[in-house]
Amino acid sequence: MRVEFINPFIASLLNVLSTMAQVELTPGKPRLKKDDKAKGDITGIMGMMSTQAKGSFSLTFDESLALAIMNNMLGEKPAKIDAEVIDMVGEITNMVTGGAKRILADKGFDFDMSTPIVVSGKDHTITHKSEGPKLLLPLTSVFGNASIEICFDS
Amino acid sequence: MRVEFINPFIASLLNVLSTMAQVELTPGKPRLKKDDKAKGDITGIMGMMSTQAKGSFSLTFDESLALAIMNNMLGEKPAKIDAEVIDMVGEITNMVTGGAKRILADKGFDFDMSTPIVVSGKDHTITHKSEGPKLLLPLTSVFGNASIEICFDS
Repeated sequence: MRVEFINPFIASLLNVLSTMAQVELTPGKPRLKKDDKAKGDITGIMGMMSTQAKGSFSLTFDESLALAIMNNMLGEKPAKIDAEVIDMVGEITNMVTGGAKRILADKGFDFDMSTPIVVSGKDHTITHKSEGPKLLLPLTSVFGNASIEICFDS
Repeated sequence: MRVEFINPFIASLLNVLSTMAQVELTPGKPRLKKDDKAKGDITGIMGMMSTQAKGSFSLTFDESLALAIMNNMLGEKPAKIDAEVIDMVGEITNMVTGGAKRILADKGFDFDMSTPIVVSGKDHTITHKSEGPKLLLPLTSVFGNASIEICFDS
């Protein structure tokens, strides 16, 4: 897996949040590291499989950013992460991986996805247990931070 | 998806923990509920896909139970969840889903798996965002509680 592989996921995330929630994220530098962990308050996870490889994707938000997206997207201002915010993060995970899947299919790399899982809990960490390298991309916004992590086992 | 579908996962989990860690878990009653959430301190997650359906699996432990398994399996007694406990939960997730996959294949239901993801964080919750029913099974032990959750979208 090459570092460029993360670009369709970044492009899809920026597009989804910009068009659906008018939230602009600024991507940092992708890192190829064994020890870095995505850390945040709410995370959408998706399993991914292709004929060549299998792997996983996660998208983690600070609570403040998740609540700002909720407000902009649905006009609701919950005081903290609730069932509707969890639903929204599941939907965003579907949209981001679905968009990346289409971009990657155009490049000849087809993969299938599982159904999304959403983790909620203050300051949790996500560890992808793939044999292959893990790509971590931090993103910033005026509302708080986010990160994408993807890995494939080949 | 039928409630019996969870049985291979239960059998595989009991077998893995009994043989690898001499830890006996007592399964409770599987529940088919929309609002129940797996809640715990460390969770192994696996995406699952078949030609007929896609879904997800999670296996959640209390910290005390994860540390007891660590001690019995590897003879190590970390004071809290660390990188090695995270590795161990990833491996257990691989073994449990791999065992269930073999049992289900014998029944004519083949599925592929992603790579495991491990979530660590005090009292986090896991929400499976499948269209289909979610099966939650609580398990108890002298060391603490665990739960399995699986869902498929058809």
